[in-house]
Amino acid sequence: MALIVHKYGGTSMGSTERIRNVAKRVAKWSRAGHQMVVVPSAMSGETNRLLGLAKELAPGRSDDDHNRELDMLAATGEQASSALLAIALQAEGVQAVSYAGWQVQVKTDSAFTKARIESIDDARVRGDLEAGKVVVITGFQGVDEAGNITTLGRGGSDTSAVAIAAAMKAHECLIYTDVDGVYTTDPRVEPDARRLSTVSFEEMLEMASLGSKVLQIRSVEFAGKYKVPLRVLSSFTPWDIDLQEEAKSGTLITFEEDENMEQAVVSGIAFNRDEAKISVLGVPDKPGIAYNILGAVADANVEVDVIIQNLSKDGRTDFSFTVHRNDYAKTVDLLKDKVLPTLGASDIVGDTKICKVSIVGIGMRSHVGVASKMFRVLSEEGINIQMISTSEIKTSVVIDEKYMELAVRALHKAFDLDQPAS
Amino acid sequence: MALIVHKYGGTSMGSTERIRNVAKRVAKWSRAGHQMVVVPSAMSGETNRLLGLAKELAPGRSDDDHNRELDMLAATGEQASSALLAIALQAEGVQAVSYAGWQVQVKTDSAFTKARIESIDDARVRGDLEAGKVVVITGFQGVDEAGNITTLGRGGSDTSAVAIAAAMKAHECLIYTDVDGVYTTDPRVEPDARRLSTVSFEEMLEMASLGSKVLQIRSVEFAGKYKVPLRVLSSFTPWDIDLQEEAKSGTLITFEEDENMEQAVVSGIAFNRDEAKISVLGVPDKPGIAYNILGAVADANVEVDVIIQNLSKDGRTDFSFTVHRNDYAKTVDLLKDKVLPTLGASDIVGDTKICKVSIVGIGMRSHVGVASKMFRVLSEEGINIQMISTSEIKTSVVIDEKYMELAVRALHKAFDLDQPAS
Repeated sequence: MALIVHKYGGTSMGSTERIRNVAKRVAKWSRAGHQMVVVPSAMSGETNRLLGLAKELAPGRSDDDHNRELDMLAATGEQASSALLAIALQAEGVQAVSYAGWQVQVKTDSAFTKARIESIDDARVRGDLEAGKVVVITGFQGVDEAGNITTLGRGGSDTSAVAIAAAMKAHECLIYTDVDGVYTTDPRVEPDARRLSTVSFEEMLEMASLGSKVLQIRSVEFAGKYKVPLRVLSSFTPWDIDLQEEAKSGTLITFEEDENMEQAVVSGIAFNRDEAKISVLGVPDKPGIAYNILGAVADANVEVDVIIQNLSKDGRTDFSFTVHRNDYAKTVDLLKDKVLPTLGASDIVGDTKICKVSIVGIGMRSHVGVASKMFRVLSEEGINIQMISTSEIKTSVVIDEKYMELAVRALHKAFDLDQPAS
Repeated sequence: MALIVHKYGGTSMGSTERIRNVAKRVAKWSRAGHQMVVVPSAMSGETNRLLGLAKELAPGRSDDDHNRELDMLAATGEQASSALLAIALQAEGVQAVSYAGWQVQVKTDSAFTKARIESIDDARVRGDLEAGKVVVITGFQGVDEAGNITTLGRGGSDTSAVAIAAAMKAHECLIYTDVDGVYTTDPRVEPDARRLSTVSFEEMLEMASLGSKVLQIRSVEFAGKYKVPLRVLSSFTPWDIDLQEEAKSGTLITFEEDENMEQAVVSGIAFNRDEAKISVLGVPDKPGIAYNILGAVADANVEVDVIIQNLSKDGRTDFSFTVHRNDYAKTVDLLKDKVLPTLGASDIVGDTKICKVSIVGIGMRSHVGVASKMFRVLSEEGINIQMISTSEIKTSVVIDEKYMELAVRALHKAFDLDQPAS
């Protein structure tokens, strides 16, 4: 008997039939003696429907007053699905009650449409759990100091579930989703990709930030900060499968290195096709280059990922970085208009046909030669590396987009990711 | 410059195009220098859609836990439309903010799905008004002492608007709806029916309770209790008609008798086809009959309207009353099973083909002979009166349903309601 948090995504809540299945699954856990807190997303499509109406009324607007109202509007989707789930649970003969974020004091800052959770007051929830009730709490939303409704941004229900699990010191937070766990790489690219039964928090963080969109990255950060055991598992298994089996399915994201973890040096191959490369050529090599170039980019609210400054030659250097493809044109224009004239650089060139491929593994901390093995494998396949970026548990390379599948498959095989864990 | 409350029904909020029209109308009032509070209903169809989902999940349920969740669910409709209206107002260049019931402390009791407003804390709203903002407040809902969301029942947005107008001592509460005011009778029955420019609160109360469904009856009670000047007017006039003209349109419901009111003795003819008559025949005439019969009916949660006890003859009497047609069969069965055997009555008979026609007028208080004129008019038309019920400002008769239109038209003409007010 433990306190368990379940989170169900919009697809799992997509119809009354599916909501009924969620209720049956939760009822099974409750009847097994667990104290259950459930965090559902809005029914799939609902948030888009609501925001679509707002867009019809005020296209292109995004000031603070407007965003406050968007949050007021979007928050209704989760409130409705939470009430529906409580109703479905009651119909299954389980006592249940639903709460909006403000009712259990999910306190956030006031950054409307992308607020951050600051605290949760769990007294009311504990009272209900003690009384034998299943507690449904709206995901995605909270309330600021002034009593305004806030939302956490897309995917925010994951973060809500983790924050609630952290505040309540839950035994485990189970994220039910439309994938059945975290894989060594995307199975659509490498059919031999294998589901990981455990993955470390740091690896998950790198994989999430590299485009493995299993979990919202902020939910993983939150889980890491508060050491919430987090499990990603499928909501499409039959609701009545054996509870012990279900409790061990999917992928567990762990925080303790001495746990019985898979001993592979590299846990997964991540990739990202959403970036573009920009190079500023012939920059006079003097202090302040990086700031002059990237300061202007940051002021335009463009996020920069990989950054490379070449060795200087004849007092001049080349400076390259990657941005999201959507920001590519805007960034090139900005540099040409504002930076090129004052910096005395010779030219701006760019390439949108690139991709980033990364090997991720907590074992890389204590193993030397992992990066060089990566470079060797790519060289053997005749793939030219354009940029390199490393961290403690990750090595990323930027390569020509057309080699992406080849690189992922070669690395997956070279690091034995197609073999069952020892 | 005054504090004005506008209330818009679901039809007026039925699409983004209509919401935009509401915003333009409110912006016109705001720009004319008025402090504006707006109470919108949910977009038409939305409440039914949400409650339909709940019904799929838990058909036929209505306990307290279930009703709490229904309120949580249904309240989202008004929250969404309020946010959308604030967004539309901002797009019109008007500063606007929306609040859910709990955010401005619309406190109610805990009777889920049919709660009653107890108080409203207007401090936050006043602050916004002083700062030049239009304030949108969700109708239909509030929050109970324990912080649960409650709803006021169908049509509750009218009551919300009146309660807010009362709490804020608004100059006037304007109820925009799909009819353009209160008529002397239903224009579908009597084409010569005339719109009343004013009607007294007591008359409105009688007309509402008699089936003139212009306003929710509780909102009229509320308006009477707190003397809120209430105007019913059309939301289908163009938004840009002259404000002075709009401010005088529709029907004003007044509370002060010395106002410049229309001097007609009878203000309107109301009718109701939803009732059925039940008679208990040959009841021994002894104390407690009414209680024995109606007590059992009340215990079954059936509301009784007109009640008649005939003169006793040979120690026996007949006892008749009307109930809603939906309760007719249930009530007859109940009486046959439980009351007939113990009461010693001879039979139960009933009639569902009846209707109730009423003349309503505050002038009846000070004029004699109004009721007898009604009876004479009906007699001249050959209409037999089955039951009579009177109050200070109303006389109702129960007649055969087939004479309803004839009775309404004859009375409308006899009391000069087709003539313009003097």
